[in-house]
Amino acid sequence: MAEYIEPLERLADMFRRLDGVGRKSAMRYAFNVLSFTESEAREFADALIAVKTDLVLCEECQNISSEKVCGICGGDTRDHGVICVVEDPRAVSAIEKTGHYKGVYHVLHGVISPMKGIAPDNLKIKELLKRIHNETISEVIIATNPTAEGEATAMYLSRLISPLGIKVSRIANGVPVGGDLEYADEVTLRRAIEGRYEL
Amino acid sequence: MAEYIEPLERLADMFRRLDGVGRKSAMRYAFNVLSFTESEAREFADALIAVKTDLVLCEECQNISSEKVCGICGGDTRDHGVICVVEDPRAVSAIEKTGHYKGVYHVLHGVISPMKGIAPDNLKIKELLKRIHNETISEVIIATNPTAEGEATAMYLSRLISPLGIKVSRIANGVPVGGDLEYADEVTLRRAIEGRYEL
Repeated sequence: MAEYIEPLERLADMFRRLDGVGRKSAMRYAFNVLSFTESEAREFADALIAVKTDLVLCEECQNISSEKVCGICGGDTRDHGVICVVEDPRAVSAIEKTGHYKGVYHVLHGVISPMKGIAPDNLKIKELLKRIHNETISEVIIATNPTAEGEATAMYLSRLISPLGIKVSRIANGVPVGGDLEYADEVTLRRAIEGRYEL
Repeated sequence: MAEYIEPLERLADMFRRLDGVGRKSAMRYAFNVLSFTESEAREFADALIAVKTDLVLCEECQNISSEKVCGICGGDTRDHGVICVVEDPRAVSAIEKTGHYKGVYHVLHGVISPMKGIAPDNLKIKELLKRIHNETISEVIIATNPTAEGEATAMYLSRLISPLGIKVSRIANGVPVGGDLEYADEVTLRRAIEGRYEL
């Protein structure tokens, strides 16, 4: 006999494909669904499929979007001369939450990673260069994550774009606001000191 | 503009209905689904619906089952004279994993809880009494959780069943194997001492 009966096991297997969901959580979620009404389960199922069928990549910035051109690229309140390059749509959302950035974005959908077999061609770099060639861009802010791969991708993009006479910048490293110097790692602390500003 | 685009938000809202899933995890799961293939997403959706449409309660023990009578009640290797009463199907699975129990089960689908408005009538107690009346039962082991409500339900069932001349037992409380006495609470430790056995 299987540990649980088949439909529950099958649903738990699906939940386990989600990041950070282990065997016990997956089974707990499957039991949660069991306590949903049938219409709730159908609503959940529809939402799952809609994510795959109703979303496209914005023609401009390659962010996920329900329209051909996303709300940010299509809006006339943003500065289309400044492009913030990010790894994934989550980063767009994180920056949007600050409410401070007024330029547009470009989503790479990954970072260069020889270990994972991700080459520049696998990212939306061609699309970025096309935008730079076709539009008047004053600055490209590279906001890939401050990981080894994110830094390498930033360097790669910088060498590609700087020669075109466009200002290329990188988001600052430093001690997080509210953080404690005691717990900051050496590299972060060194960068925080290097990047010090006058008061 | 919504924080994320609509289909992703909607899926994240569904994930948030699962126990212990917060806003960030729900959004992470929704992004995970975005990276599934469309057929994987459909498979997930089908699994969700199957849990609601392909499962019934076993006529005998009220455990969830894909057949009218579950594998345990339908099998002839189990002792049908001993019924272990549990709160939910997860408890059945937990006890089955020990590989030690050879009797059958009865799933109450909850415990008596005046706070949550759950009365004995809302549980599968009638069905349990029917089994006790119709079959030859030698022992009822009450394995509700050792919580206030689980204990109250155990007391309630004991007062109902003992007068019928059937042995009613309760699973033991004590220090978990591999546990540390220092971290055991007072009630558990008192029960462990009360329930001591001779070596």
